Amino acid sequence: MIKASIVGGTGYTGVELLRLLAIHPDVEVQAITSRSERGRSVAELFPSLRGHLALEFTEPSIDVLGSSDVVFFATPHGVAQSMARDIVSRGIRVIDLSADFRLRDVSVWEQWYGQAHACPELIETAVYGLPEINRDAIAGAQMVSCPGCYPTSVILGFLPLLRENIVDVDDLIANAASGVSGAGRGASVANLHAEVSDSFKAYGVAGHRHLPEIEQCLAALASGPVNLTFVPHLLPIVRGIHATLYASMANRDVDQAALQKLYEDYYAGEPFVDVLPAGMLPQTRTVRGANVCRIAVARPLARNKIVVMSAIDNLVKGASGQAVQNLNLMFGLPETRGLETPPLLP
Amino acid sequence: MIKASIVGGTGYTGVELLRLLAIHPDVEVQAITSRSERGRSVAELFPSLRGHLALEFTEPSIDVLGSSDVVFFATPHGVAQSMARDIVSRGIRVIDLSADFRLRDVSVWEQWYGQAHACPELIETAVYGLPEINRDAIAGAQMVSCPGCYPTSVILGFLPLLRENIVDVDDLIANAASGVSGAGRGASVANLHAEVSDSFKAYGVAGHRHLPEIEQCLAALASGPVNLTFVPHLLPIVRGIHATLYASMANRDVDQAALQKLYEDYYAGEPFVDVLPAGMLPQTRTVRGANVCRIAVARPLARNKIVVMSAIDNLVKGASGQAVQNLNLMFGLPETRGLETPPLLP
Amino acid sequence: MIKASIVGGTGYTGVELLRLLAIHPDVEVQAITSRSERGRSVAELFPSLRGHLALEFTEPSIDVLGSSDVVFFATPHGVAQSMARDIVSRGIRVIDLSADFRLRDVSVWEQWYGQAHACPELIETAVYGLPEINRDAIAGAQMVSCPGCYPTSVILGFLPLLRENIVDVDDLIANAASGVSGAGRGASVANLHAEVSDSFKAYGVAGHRHLPEIEQCLAALASGPVNLTFVPHLLPIVRGIHATLYASMANRDVDQAALQKLYEDYYAGEPFVDVLPAGMLPQTRTVRGANVCRIAVARPLARNKIVVMSAIDNLVKGASGQAVQNLNLMFGLPETRGLETPPLLP
Amino acid sequence: MIKASIVGGTGYTGVELLRLLAIHPDVEVQAITSRSERGRSVAELFPSLRGHLALEFTEPSIDVLGSSDVVFFATPHGVAQSMARDIVSRGIRVIDLSADFRLRDVSVWEQWYGQAHACPELIETAVYGLPEINRDAIAGAQMVSCPGCYPTSVILGFLPLLRENIVDVDDLIANAASGVSGAGRGASVANLHAEVSDSFKAYGVAGHRHLPEIEQCLAALASGPVNLTFVPHLLPIVRGIHATLYASMANRDVDQAALQKLYEDYYAGEPFVDVLPAGMLPQTRTVRGANVCRIAVARPLARNKIVVMSAIDNLVKGASGQAVQNLNLMFGLPETRGLETPPLLP
Repeated sequence: MIKASIVGGTGYTGVELLRLLAIHPDVEVQAITSRSERGRSVAELFPSLRGHLALEFTEPSIDVLGSSDVVFFATPHGVAQSMARDIVSRGIRVIDLSADFRLRDVSVWEQWYGQAHACPELIETAVYGLPEINRDAIAGAQMVSCPGCYPTSVILGFLPLLRENIVDVDDLIANAASGVSGAGRGASVANLHAEVSDSFKAYGVAGHRHLPEIEQCLAALASGPVNLTFVPHLLPIVRGIHATLYASMANRDVDQAALQKLYEDYYAGEPFVDVLPAGMLPQTRTVRGANVCRIAVARPLARNKIVVMSAIDNLVKGASGQAVQNLNLMFGLPETRGLETPPLLP
Repeated sequence: MIKASIVGGTGYTGVELLRLLAIHPDVEVQAITSRSERGRSVAELFPSLRGHLALEFTEPSIDVLGSSDVVFFATPHGVAQSMARDIVSRGIRVIDLSADFRLRDVSVWEQWYGQAHACPELIETAVYGLPEINRDAIAGAQMVSCPGCYPTSVILGFLPLLRENIVDVDDLIANAASGVSGAGRGASVANLHAEVSDSFKAYGVAGHRHLPEIEQCLAALASGPVNLTFVPHLLPIVRGIHATLYASMANRDVDQAALQKLYEDYYAGEPFVDVLPAGMLPQTRTVRGANVCRIAVARPLARNKIVVMSAIDNLVKGASGQAVQNLNLMFGLPETRGLETPPLLP
Repeated sequence: MIKASIVGGTGYTGVELLRLLAIHPDVEVQAITSRSERGRSVAELFPSLRGHLALEFTEPSIDVLGSSDVVFFATPHGVAQSMARDIVSRGIRVIDLSADFRLRDVSVWEQWYGQAHACPELIETAVYGLPEINRDAIAGAQMVSCPGCYPTSVILGFLPLLRENIVDVDDLIANAASGVSGAGRGASVANLHAEVSDSFKAYGVAGHRHLPEIEQCLAALASGPVNLTFVPHLLPIVRGIHATLYASMANRDVDQAALQKLYEDYYAGEPFVDVLPAGMLPQTRTVRGANVCRIAVARPLARNKIVVMSAIDNLVKGASGQAVQNLNLMFGLPETRGLETPPLLP
Repeated sequence: MIKASIVGGTGYTGVELLRLLAIHPDVEVQAITSRSERGRSVAELFPSLRGHLALEFTEPSIDVLGSSDVVFFATPHGVAQSMARDIVSRGIRVIDLSADFRLRDVSVWEQWYGQAHACPELIETAVYGLPEINRDAIAGAQMVSCPGCYPTSVILGFLPLLRENIVDVDDLIANAASGVSGAGRGASVANLHAEVSDSFKAYGVAGHRHLPEIEQCLAALASGPVNLTFVPHLLPIVRGIHATLYASMANRDVDQAALQKLYEDYYAGEPFVDVLPAGMLPQTRTVRGANVCRIAVARPLARNKIVVMSAIDNLVKGASGQAVQNLNLMFGLPETRGLETPPLLP
């Protein structure tokens, strides 16, 4: 059994990680930390886990974490970078769900996150944990930095177009929408049911922290700079991200059927990317609770614009499920281990 | 024009009061106070009011309030009792939406609210603002204490049964459910969309502050002590209270048709109580945004239990609309003035 | 591997059964029937099952069903009674999720369902599939009739009180609320999102078909007639039933602590009934997607009324999960096989 | 009093029109027609209107409609074109909320709607009822064709950019999302609460009937052909459309402040278009129930792409409210008459 610890288990990615690990046959959660809730039983905070997990929250300490095979960080940014050095130096593997090690350029990180980076020397070490583009590196990594939720949905959607050099990379658009669990479990007026429910809005239009992350990854895929306009929106649902991507055909003409085939071929071997048949479009409810990204591609009215739609559960393929997928790769397990449960529909 | 001020306008009853007063032809809001938001424009906090109201929040002070004809308190309990003495002593009328003056017995108030009452001498002065039982007293009152949202729905539902002495008052049950706007606009984890949405639960089973208020009023109607079991629930909707009331027929046999006639006759002259035709049941969406209580009464399978269902919008007939109805009575206006807009459906 | 067939797989209990059986290690679904969708792939109708199930809907026929070890009916009432005779006569086991064989008295069935019963001779054969009261009989049954969703939540909530003879069985109340998936997947105006969302209402007050089912079972537990007032309500959520039960203490005084202990002891060995610690109340979201009933019991203000709250997922413990639990019992498998996944929260 | 009749009052635009006209001081609804519901009281179908409207549905006939001053069509496409000739020939004014007379080119209409047009000779007569671009023509029109809901939100958003010739009209994108009331009140599986709630999806990607309508209008504004990519999405809310528009700066450089000023100046005199202050973004809940379009414009990170966000209530500014606004113009009333109620928030 792989001994896992979780730092920061009181948020939604934390409880989702616990839900997934509770049925993972090869992993045992040995500690979950929270300063604010230490001493409290996990099942008291999250009654859904009653009968599935007997742990209490503990103070985070290297003593507790030091006996683990792997440590997950399900924390806000800033925490992993302050603790990772110690853990990594003991040879323990780290899977970071936060934004701390996602950006390669520390100055870009510091600009977007507004603080000095506490551990720039590990940025190189941390492998970007998107298996669909980095599978081998993840398998050999000591430390994996899991992608953000929006980036996962946007990058998987653009991937075949960029790898095949089909579109104008200087004019990409990602219009994305997320359920409110993406905003975290902190008390806030803005995320009250009475504020969010039965409403819809854009936010972060002036600049969202996931933009440099997405552009960094798309640039790597395109082997050159890209320009993305990224507008996130807040959905009155709990789980789910839906991205609608727009790109102009630039270098060659590809008709609808060829686009469909391109995507199907490209993702044929991927266990967690599902290219829908022509004419079917993704819905967030068809991925709820499952580690899958469903994608459709279209060229409306045979005009010049390609439209890609992708849907994930932000807490699963966009966070905790992808973290487990990375764990499977890092420990040589079948990539789908513990992730076989179908989505919950309706 | 009646000059009105509102103390504590940043909550949901405050913004609802502003919405209703914005279209009231005889009232002008001259001040709205908030310590935390002073200097900020109301329309910035509540963009729905852009173009309808040019006020800024101000510091609450007797100077500002002293030139009003009427002062509304849309505050948590404890505020009105600390400020009412000054206002009342200047001859200004007060309409209190909070719980401060609802209970006649100050010791009961102090027991349920866990603090000393700062102004017990005004409890006698404050008229309980449920027009359907207190219309004349309200018309002559200097100070009105508006009922709680649950009490409004429960009392109007039981009223004909108690007045007519039909049921066993020692075994009344009110199973009620409220939309989350009833929990207020404060930041809290419990009321986040991701916590409340797509869920349902009871709360306050061990004892809810509206219980003594309801029992006090029902006892007055029954001319003797009553025993009510009251269980509130939290609905994943924004607005609306639905109460399902149970009582046993005790003193005489009344069949379904007679019950229907009793309710229809009883409320025939009431502008804001709507007894539905036999077979139609109230839904919260049919009262959304309007100052109306819809009621149905049934005697299922001709057994001994009478079931009454009542629905209100907790922010309107359960709070700010009832406050305006009381204002109309206090100032000699037609009772329906400013309250004629139909509910918003769908 | 147990070969299972499903008759009527296009509704919500059908797709939920498929979701659960997809991860059941001992069951293989060999056929799923639907007249209206025959020839269509299941994953086209329910894209959540893409990659989990390769079946197409087929015409229901004894040829297809005849090679099964077990046949599930996930059909409206009337279908199972027309087909069960043939299947049972071949020695195949039947698990009926519909209402066809729930009522022992065929005349009561015919009165509430408004049609003649097509197979009264099998009513005796069919075991009422609530494992918590009928475990042994289910294990030996050829045919199991699964309880309705409301009855499951209400019976499990009242069970200890009735078995222990604590309350007045002549005055029981069940105020219950269900998510809209309980209304099925048929096209209807009443269940449109724009009609149901952001609203709440009672329905079926004059008489609901689950009433005779619940009373039949409670009477058996109480060893005598009972009188239940049952009022169902429609919740603007997809999954979940919450029942709030009221009963008067009649025969002996049991305080809050003793009630808590009674329930904990009573359900101590039950894998799928969770008595919450004192002070914690069930929420439908803490059972979403899982085969569990969470229960709390209270005696508010030490008065005479006992209040019990129970929550289930209507599609799981209220339907398809309970069906799988029954299958496990009928085939000698561990009762929890395939049902270990924790609820989906948030 | 203006005598108004409504053809087809059983849908959501019909009931919304009734709600608005119920408080319009200059209009009296004298008839509302529905073949399927004839003889039934309107308040029975829509209990929200109890006490506000005493009408019954009647069979549509020229006798009933012939005594009106104005006839509204709140019908699916195909109805107005079959009845308008008779009504118009009697000199009665017509306000059509359907799509029948929106497209100038009858062949385009027939291609997108898949049927022959029954009344092409009135297409010229019908004025496109978007007051912000057509105010004078509407005032003098006998017949007004109200814009679709998506077109209203998209055209008002793009309008200043196109009139000022700032962007590349050959590459416009409208990513829009609508609440489910936009799908109408017909029984359908796709719009059930259990299908729509807690989910999000794109639809109509291959081509939506509002595309030619929007392009027709934008081309007129741009004085030349335009190319729009339009992707609608379905929101799990009841009311509201939010459009996120993308355009590339083409002909001159306009910074964020200049864009803001352009929009503010452009809409300064418009009673129902609200340009939000810089930094504030529209939310559908801030327009719920009101005849207003709120707009924000941004140039993220000073790059080349302009992003415009606009929000309306699809049933009000996107349908029935705009119809009343048109009535006011046609009958020489103040444009805001009957439309002064603030949005319902929360």
